[in-house]
Amino acid sequence: MKAAIISVGTEILFGQITNTNTVYLSKKLNELGIDVLYHLTVGDNPSRLIEIMDFAKINCDLIITTGGLGPTQDDLTKEIVCKANNDELVLDQPSLDSIEKAFQKMNATMTKNNIKQAYLPKTSTIFPNSHGTAPGFAIEANGCTTICLPGPPKEMTKMFEKQAISYLMGKVDHAISYKLIRTIGIGESALETALLPLINNQVDPTIATYAKEGESYLRIASKRATQEEADEAVDSMLNNVKKIIGKYIYSENGDDLSKVVCEILLNKKISISTAESCTGGLFASTLVSYPGISEIFQKGYVTYSNEAKVDMINVNSEYIDKYGVVSGEVAEQMVKGLFEKTGSDLCISVTGVAGPDGGTKEKPVGTVYIGCKYRDKIISERFDLMNRGRDGIRRRSVLSMFRVIYEMLED
Amino acid sequence: MKAAIISVGTEILFGQITNTNTVYLSKKLNELGIDVLYHLTVGDNPSRLIEIMDFAKINCDLIITTGGLGPTQDDLTKEIVCKANNDELVLDQPSLDSIEKAFQKMNATMTKNNIKQAYLPKTSTIFPNSHGTAPGFAIEANGCTTICLPGPPKEMTKMFEKQAISYLMGKVDHAISYKLIRTIGIGESALETALLPLINNQVDPTIATYAKEGESYLRIASKRATQEEADEAVDSMLNNVKKIIGKYIYSENGDDLSKVVCEILLNKKISISTAESCTGGLFASTLVSYPGISEIFQKGYVTYSNEAKVDMINVNSEYIDKYGVVSGEVAEQMVKGLFEKTGSDLCISVTGVAGPDGGTKEKPVGTVYIGCKYRDKIISERFDLMNRGRDGIRRRSVLSMFRVIYEMLED
Repeated sequence: MKAAIISVGTEILFGQITNTNTVYLSKKLNELGIDVLYHLTVGDNPSRLIEIMDFAKINCDLIITTGGLGPTQDDLTKEIVCKANNDELVLDQPSLDSIEKAFQKMNATMTKNNIKQAYLPKTSTIFPNSHGTAPGFAIEANGCTTICLPGPPKEMTKMFEKQAISYLMGKVDHAISYKLIRTIGIGESALETALLPLINNQVDPTIATYAKEGESYLRIASKRATQEEADEAVDSMLNNVKKIIGKYIYSENGDDLSKVVCEILLNKKISISTAESCTGGLFASTLVSYPGISEIFQKGYVTYSNEAKVDMINVNSEYIDKYGVVSGEVAEQMVKGLFEKTGSDLCISVTGVAGPDGGTKEKPVGTVYIGCKYRDKIISERFDLMNRGRDGIRRRSVLSMFRVIYEMLED
Repeated sequence: MKAAIISVGTEILFGQITNTNTVYLSKKLNELGIDVLYHLTVGDNPSRLIEIMDFAKINCDLIITTGGLGPTQDDLTKEIVCKANNDELVLDQPSLDSIEKAFQKMNATMTKNNIKQAYLPKTSTIFPNSHGTAPGFAIEANGCTTICLPGPPKEMTKMFEKQAISYLMGKVDHAISYKLIRTIGIGESALETALLPLINNQVDPTIATYAKEGESYLRIASKRATQEEADEAVDSMLNNVKKIIGKYIYSENGDDLSKVVCEILLNKKISISTAESCTGGLFASTLVSYPGISEIFQKGYVTYSNEAKVDMINVNSEYIDKYGVVSGEVAEQMVKGLFEKTGSDLCISVTGVAGPDGGTKEKPVGTVYIGCKYRDKIISERFDLMNRGRDGIRRRSVLSMFRVIYEMLED
């Protein structure tokens, strides 16, 4: 199948919202083996929506719309899709019942215009909305499937996952399997070069490499007659990949490094404390984004100023004078002091030049030192995270801290 | 002018990247008084790019493309735009020189395919690329302006700001002025109701209200013959707006609350320390995102566990037992202890239920208490930040902390 994703909403054309619906749908459709040919966005304008649907139908046999299913006058997607498919809108009693229930649940009065949402194309397959009031639907005509989903991302994604996927699976004559393999310590071009013997001869499964902030990953995908065959093809290719670059792989299911590290810490009950300078608490805050982390996350110090480093975690101010506050020596002092204060199994620290000022020739903006103490071992490592802007340097520093911990725990 | 934004890149159709270019360009074009009718995305596919450009030209007299200007074989935008405008590609020596210089600066060898980037349509206005190698350009034919910009957002935005805006300004016969007014403590519908007398009669300037995470804002815009007239119209309307909702306004230039608060702290030299539970360092990290904040940001404690609250900032464990760790009493204990430890002018604390577990009937997931001490005054405030997910609750907690500080300093 070849698909067009049509987003309807004037607010998108004003730049008021980022269109994350298309990103989500594109990923999902590609995973189902459906090619996405177009992303098309129009405002709440009937004639332009008609024109763009006509355009999409030239090359596509699947159209997915998001938005314009609501109760107000400018919500017109349903009316136009219905007309384009020579259908008529009829009241769907189950939909009306559940809209009424939704209002009762919110203790809100249902204004009359909400009834509009329960009118749906007669021949359509209706998708109830578990997270909102506007139902979605799928409709078939002239060899083209049109699926209409609500605009709010939460409603749209739930409806797609719960209902549209199984609807689409009934229409495709193949099964798809894929795995997202994440690596650390190897660049994208080195990864590609190492895997060239596999990539060059690929028909199915396919292997593609990608680069993303500080790491490289690869996607192995297979499209076969049955799910079993597709899964087997992916697993067998993964085994071949592992023979070549196995030592760089940290996740075979797409999980990111912070999640993998948090899971190791939780599983092994390794307690952790943090001392952050340039990241200002961003690392601790990333830890805390994992539910249950309180079991092992003990204490976090944000020691942005030199005084805070001395007062809060006993950094010797002579070290700061002698080596500079951004140095491996101070990063190590920080974890030593942190251990004295907390006794945690694992202590991690960071000090760096996030800019825009403060850089020198030896230590330009982007120079970051990470200290780590795990049981008897203390290390510090320098990272050169240039040309990323202040926030980029801080985000990459956090990622590097997870990397240092991961490697420390691997040893 | 009526515009279509065409994004070229197969990676967008795979859902591998979020299309932020269209958001940026839509905002900018609307600010220039240019209506955006379509966002259109195609892959690196020549025939589909031709078709979509033909489609765009039916209703638009301005087409802006992003992507497909690079050195590789699948970068085809320039060739297709050139052909569609009956022009031919010729070598532009200044462009070649600056591409060569860019490679020298990176200490990299310039492979032969890079020369391709210096071939540009003969009749076009060339836009040099200050942040990359591929130049952009503008070309006119048959009453339609086509502007081609590179795909990487950093290169695209710089080129648009430095060159495309002034090119477009020469084509529009009006001037635009606008202001983004941000408010706190008033909901969007209340804001709209209060301003109805102004909104109902609006022709120019226009007023529109918006809601965004935890706050409402409004945009006043005017489109007049001269810049002076437009600026004056906006200022005069702002004065009328202020008469009605002046006390809720915290920013007249679009700055967000965290920036406004950091500037007040820096200007008044008010030192600050933080104690965070559920936000886990996210507030401190937001402070640290402002360059120069080290002047006043003294110490940050991440006290996620009860033990950390007792050990690090002297919270009385009896209070935790008696009132619960998520309570106004503990939030106040936290700022008191924080002050003992730091002596900072302003001490701020937060404790809350970020979920997914830990909620009770009286204090469901999303219940957050913020404590604040400024000089002799200590307060705590409860916020109910339900139905946002763990990360949403934490982000809103940070915003609420800035709000508490803002109101504390206003008093």
